[in-house]
Amino acid sequence: MPVQQTTLSIRPKPRGFHLITRDIEQALQQFGKVEAGLLHVFIQHTSASLTINEDADPSVRQDFESHFNHMVPENAPYYLHTDEGPDDMPAHLKASLLGSSVTLPVTDGRLNVGTWQGVYLCEHRNNAGARRLVLTLTS
Amino acid sequence: MPVQQTTLSIRPKPRGFHLITRDIEQALQQFGKVEAGLLHVFIQHTSASLTINEDADPSVRQDFESHFNHMVPENAPYYLHTDEGPDDMPAHLKASLLGSSVTLPVTDGRLNVGTWQGVYLCEHRNNAGARRLVLTLTS
Amino acid sequence: MPVQQTTLSIRPKPRGFHLITRDIEQALQQFGKVEAGLLHVFIQHTSASLTINEDADPSVRQDFESHFNHMVPENAPYYLHTDEGPDDMPAHLKASLLGSSVTLPVTDGRLNVGTWQGVYLCEHRNNAGARRLVLTLTS
Repeated sequence: MPVQQTTLSIRPKPRGFHLITRDIEQALQQFGKVEAGLLHVFIQHTSASLTINEDADPSVRQDFESHFNHMVPENAPYYLHTDEGPDDMPAHLKASLLGSSVTLPVTDGRLNVGTWQGVYLCEHRNNAGARRLVLTLTS
Repeated sequence: MPVQQTTLSIRPKPRGFHLITRDIEQALQQFGKVEAGLLHVFIQHTSASLTINEDADPSVRQDFESHFNHMVPENAPYYLHTDEGPDDMPAHLKASLLGSSVTLPVTDGRLNVGTWQGVYLCEHRNNAGARRLVLTLTS
Repeated sequence: MPVQQTTLSIRPKPRGFHLITRDIEQALQQFGKVEAGLLHVFIQHTSASLTINEDADPSVRQDFESHFNHMVPENAPYYLHTDEGPDDMPAHLKASLLGSSVTLPVTDGRLNVGTWQGVYLCEHRNNAGARRLVLTLTS
């Protein structure tokens, strides 16, 4: 079975950067143990994103929120797309800066990532609903 | 046939962010219907890029152009690589911020993306030629 | 053998953007010649990253260092995660802006990238050790 696929719904989260590594690992276990492969995790939204970063100290995730708010401000004078609220256009821009997917090596049935690496769901909207992920394992 | 590959040439486009979802979908159909897979789309250039974002309102794509011009300005005093014009070095930087490829889940022969997600070709040069993509389907 | 995997250690490099295309190509040759495939290169660290950009003129890589230092400054007043030195939190942010992995098309046993494209290892720390990569070839 070279390609296996499933979906995962992540319950609504507040604006900010959230670790979802355990959700990903649990979904990976459904696929059965593979010797070597790649896990692609895709978010089906344009105002939230996925990235990989430090999973130990929560202040790193707070600093992500602060820095992205600084680098992609609300109410920039050049925004035309403003109908859906001040957090909407920055959310789209942040989503493309961080990306809609991460691809992780899998070895002996487990994510083969570094000691301090975790998967972040980056929620860029103030009042978002659940976020849907598509997970695809190639092995 | 686990891996299928083709190339796609996108006709010259003005500087800005352009939807190419239909070009991608047409190329995907050439591969035959696969139950589950991943489509990797790669751009063979360093001054244009690919991303996934909102495909409904054209003002989102205009705001992408405005914001990236603000965040990666022309004529920054610290640029050394200036021989190829003021739009060249910003083009390289924007290309790496957005990325050279997108990977999309494929389910039942179709792109399995969100309702509002489209693929953007991000043209960062003022007078670019055609852009070449390499598409690889793993299934 | 649909998926092949190996690791690659890159010797310590100074802060900045460094070409590692040849290291990647050499590792690819270990896998044997494949007609069509994808090579996924993953960095197991959160303060260094990978990207694809112009590989001819070294001034491009210097401008990357200058621009990323400008866009993600040290000592921003809103940083909370400051215990590991002024270069640490910017390194995490830069790593997510650029990304932890690149995926490259492989055709007839070689990287099928554009004429001017090379793979950069982006070292964001002042005094980093060796960096470990996981390479996965799907074919």
